[in-house]
Amino acid sequence: MFERIKTFFVGNALKDTDLSTEKFSVKWGLPIYSSDAISSVAYAGEEMLIVLVPALFLGAYKYYILCIAAILFLLVILAISYSQTIDAYPNGGGAYGVATENLGKIPGLIAGAALIIGYILTVAASSAAATAAIYSAFPVLQPYRVFIALGIIVLLTWGNLRGMRESAVMFGTPTYMFIAIIVITILVGAVKAVVHPEMVPKAASFNYQPTMLEGATLFLVLRAFGAGCTALTGVEAVSNAVPNFRDPATKNAKKVLALLAMVCLVCFLGLSILTAVYHVTPDPSGGITVIAQLAERVYGEGSVGFYIVQVATVVILALAANTAFAGMPVLLALMAKDGYMPRKMTNRGIRLGFSNGIEMVFLASALLIIIFRADTHSLLPLYATGVFLAFTLSQTGMLIRWIRKKNSGWKHRAVINGIGAAMSATTCLIIAISRFTAGAWMVLVAIPVIVLVMEYIHQHYHGVQNDLGMDFGDERLSDVYVPKVKIVMPISNLNRAFLKSLHYAMSIQGDLPIELYHVASTEEDQERYRERVETLKEIMNLNAVLVIEETPYRNYSEMLLQHVDKCLDQLDPHETLTVVMSQIIIRHWWQRVLHNQTSEQLKRQLEHKRNVSVVSVPYLLK
Amino acid sequence: MFERIKTFFVGNALKDTDLSTEKFSVKWGLPIYSSDAISSVAYAGEEMLIVLVPALFLGAYKYYILCIAAILFLLVILAISYSQTIDAYPNGGGAYGVATENLGKIPGLIAGAALIIGYILTVAASSAAATAAIYSAFPVLQPYRVFIALGIIVLLTWGNLRGMRESAVMFGTPTYMFIAIIVITILVGAVKAVVHPEMVPKAASFNYQPTMLEGATLFLVLRAFGAGCTALTGVEAVSNAVPNFRDPATKNAKKVLALLAMVCLVCFLGLSILTAVYHVTPDPSGGITVIAQLAERVYGEGSVGFYIVQVATVVILALAANTAFAGMPVLLALMAKDGYMPRKMTNRGIRLGFSNGIEMVFLASALLIIIFRADTHSLLPLYATGVFLAFTLSQTGMLIRWIRKKNSGWKHRAVINGIGAAMSATTCLIIAISRFTAGAWMVLVAIPVIVLVMEYIHQHYHGVQNDLGMDFGDERLSDVYVPKVKIVMPISNLNRAFLKSLHYAMSIQGDLPIELYHVASTEEDQERYRERVETLKEIMNLNAVLVIEETPYRNYSEMLLQHVDKCLDQLDPHETLTVVMSQIIIRHWWQRVLHNQTSEQLKRQLEHKRNVSVVSVPYLLK
Repeated sequence: MFERIKTFFVGNALKDTDLSTEKFSVKWGLPIYSSDAISSVAYAGEEMLIVLVPALFLGAYKYYILCIAAILFLLVILAISYSQTIDAYPNGGGAYGVATENLGKIPGLIAGAALIIGYILTVAASSAAATAAIYSAFPVLQPYRVFIALGIIVLLTWGNLRGMRESAVMFGTPTYMFIAIIVITILVGAVKAVVHPEMVPKAASFNYQPTMLEGATLFLVLRAFGAGCTALTGVEAVSNAVPNFRDPATKNAKKVLALLAMVCLVCFLGLSILTAVYHVTPDPSGGITVIAQLAERVYGEGSVGFYIVQVATVVILALAANTAFAGMPVLLALMAKDGYMPRKMTNRGIRLGFSNGIEMVFLASALLIIIFRADTHSLLPLYATGVFLAFTLSQTGMLIRWIRKKNSGWKHRAVINGIGAAMSATTCLIIAISRFTAGAWMVLVAIPVIVLVMEYIHQHYHGVQNDLGMDFGDERLSDVYVPKVKIVMPISNLNRAFLKSLHYAMSIQGDLPIELYHVASTEEDQERYRERVETLKEIMNLNAVLVIEETPYRNYSEMLLQHVDKCLDQLDPHETLTVVMSQIIIRHWWQRVLHNQTSEQLKRQLEHKRNVSVVSVPYLLK
Repeated sequence: MFERIKTFFVGNALKDTDLSTEKFSVKWGLPIYSSDAISSVAYAGEEMLIVLVPALFLGAYKYYILCIAAILFLLVILAISYSQTIDAYPNGGGAYGVATENLGKIPGLIAGAALIIGYILTVAASSAAATAAIYSAFPVLQPYRVFIALGIIVLLTWGNLRGMRESAVMFGTPTYMFIAIIVITILVGAVKAVVHPEMVPKAASFNYQPTMLEGATLFLVLRAFGAGCTALTGVEAVSNAVPNFRDPATKNAKKVLALLAMVCLVCFLGLSILTAVYHVTPDPSGGITVIAQLAERVYGEGSVGFYIVQVATVVILALAANTAFAGMPVLLALMAKDGYMPRKMTNRGIRLGFSNGIEMVFLASALLIIIFRADTHSLLPLYATGVFLAFTLSQTGMLIRWIRKKNSGWKHRAVINGIGAAMSATTCLIIAISRFTAGAWMVLVAIPVIVLVMEYIHQHYHGVQNDLGMDFGDERLSDVYVPKVKIVMPISNLNRAFLKSLHYAMSIQGDLPIELYHVASTEEDQERYRERVETLKEIMNLNAVLVIEETPYRNYSEMLLQHVDKCLDQLDPHETLTVVMSQIIIRHWWQRVLHNQTSEQLKRQLEHKRNVSVVSVPYLLK
């Protein structure tokens, strides 16, 4: 039954040999690996304006463009830096791998933890932003935003459990559509501003001077910069995925990275200038996004253009969330292979996806959506910190690599990655400090905790390996220790289930007598069991002894456990005691309440004793 | 750890021999067995006024006193009827026993179901009424009534799990105090009405004529009567408890029953007249009970007398709820012994109480409190229906008994119980019809459902008994069938845990080879296992065969289960297949996530196959 439901939702099982990855050309590689980075234009600008507008009013736009320029400069630096990572790691250069290889275990784990947090926040923030795009178009839906965001996550989880592939057309087309509609919006908006200058606020207002002190303004600008850096998340995606490109893979990947940077630059800059020109301010009630307001001004309220922008935004944000669903389980499986994550993360589900990892992404992001009430502005301050920490570690790793390897042109390359590392580190610091109280502190707490957990997991597996590992060349193998079979059999009811177990016990019995153990509460009870066991021994030719203990406290299970302990004390530490128990198997789960579950509990407790083998002999009720 | 917490809350274990019941004289028997009946004066009158006052206003009091007279007449009839039950059943004549013995199985089960509902509602309604008494004194507490009522139930559950005995002084004193304060209130109120006639509304208002039709008035009066019959619940308590009285038990019990009827009569009548004289009307907002209002008028608002009445009311209502905690687990144990309730209801806890029954009372009454928001007026309409159904069946049973037995004076006795039965049946009908929509319908639905469940339970146990029962005279005992030991051992990791299991398997192995079963996913994997098993066979002198199956679907557990089925097909139906599995025992529960739980699940699934014995050989991690 459960199997059929599962098949219905998840699909038929796939064979191991079905595991092969589509290789992408530049044409499809670009949209597939850029959705995460490009989709951030949907929220990055708004986050900056939320910081700047309330404090500086119209003067805000001056600083806004300033910050945008800084962010785009950083984008170019990062793109050049990561281009070198593609060269150096043609098999994929994720921050975890690069940092581990070049900086060591702990930086690698920190990068891994930062990436995990980044992935989870990609899902949470992107689905929250997609939800905001939905209720910007349909304001009546705003109260249900938590459910909408969860719905998006559920759909993505479902798709990924079914083994949704990054198929070129299905995933690439919406990204191109989004790029197209954004470019069109920029153009139409620019033309409109020129043709209908009455729609654009007077230039004079740009000269509005903030009344605040310069120092405070600087801090505000840094905060806005930190908020806007969410636009750069996802830039590293291409360098992780080099093997997925068609040959020449390295060259194609670098082309895609360059194009990605260009597209981001155009979209982000164009939309930002338009926002400044139209003086769009964030809605204080959070009911309509800045992008939606801009689309309204460009295309008109309730126009087809407005709705097209909203739909395209929702789709690209969902695709961005999906990149985390695709990326994080692979990272978890990689870390699990290294022993830093539960080993089950390496298990592929029936549709070949790492289903445990997918479920983990689902649970973590759904939790964040619920905790933060699907509010983009609460989630985003957590986002960039982890991502830029991973950037820093990855770039520093590259720097160290060049210095160590010293192959031709290493100085030039070291300088580039050095600048990338320094810029990333600076940005990371700016974000961590300026957004500390807004949520970055949580990430700074979470990363060491995750690292400690991973380290604990590693030590645990290491201990288990030492404990269980077996060397086939080891001479102890010939040291066969076949223990004498010493059987204890608790008896309470002398029924057919008991008889079946007794037959079974006799079949595995060696020379030692079976110990029938009974806990009696009364004198008559004792007498009755003595008689009956005598009868059994006589009729069945049974080699057994009856041990009766008395208790007035009705604590039969404890008595048996204590008795087993006593028996174990008398055994050689290598020997195993066998406890044979009959188990009545009911037909329906709701019959459980009608049968004492003591034997189940007892079995579980006995199994936790070293050197006790528990045999359960089932008796299926008719 | 859990054990220590349990001991702290529940107390040290008690011996079976500690089980003995205190015997009561008339002096202490009266308060102990009358708390349930007497406590109903705290709510019965109010329920009637709620029906009458809004419709008839001052004319209500005329009908109120009329109904009270009818109820008190019924009380006398029931007391005389139950007096005869005491004579006939000196070992306790509960409705379940009397109905089963004299009317048959189904009436007995109906009576049992009605009693169960009655007990649960005693707890729910009494604790709700106690809560109402508390917030009548302290109105700020009204919003927390659900929590207060649940708190009372939790305390009672705790006390009963600790094995709270019906100790004479502890339980008897509060009842005497309640009786005393009620009698004093009646007297003071009467004197005050005479001395300060200005406090009493004009006599003229008594002549207020209702404007309603007579038929509608009749229905209203019947409804009020039905509502007031909650005052008679608990009258049967004495007849259940005859063996708990000092010798001559029958005589003493009858004395107590007569006194109980008298006390109820005096208290109920006195309070009702006073209510009518002072024209107390129920508070529409439900903030203050009628009894509390009466106490205010008699003793003055905020006076010591008022608070004493409230405290005494809370205590006696808690005692009334406790009678159900004492009575229902005994009834459940009795029915479980007859096979109509889960057998575990007969288990005594470490403090000798029927702890499963106590927990059931707790769960059911807490659920009612939560569903009905601790509202007495919603709970009470459910109460009397079940109780009067039980009365009817019990009295009818007595009638049949006299007719069957025909011992001296049987006609006289039959007439008395016949009247009791007829009156109870009529009352039950009146309640069921007049209070149908108010909640009695739920009871009429619940009783057949409970009866069906009990019948199902009985059939299940009967089937199990047929299936499992063993006759010691049966010749099949000598027909010893010791099966050949055929062992299947799944292998996935060749580690020390596996080695330990292998040693164990060798110790119980007969002549047949151990079948090592491996599911491979690749060619190399197969090769590796073949080689290693060959090595093991050579070094360890192992009699084993290796069976390898291939799957590309990663469904290792299903493969093993299918393989076991195949092996079972080849076995004689009497033979048992033994599956030996190593089990890694972790030290801490949170390490579970680090180890695959597949072997646990697999064991559970294997145990559900007839003829598969599962042996788990534990390997405790260091």
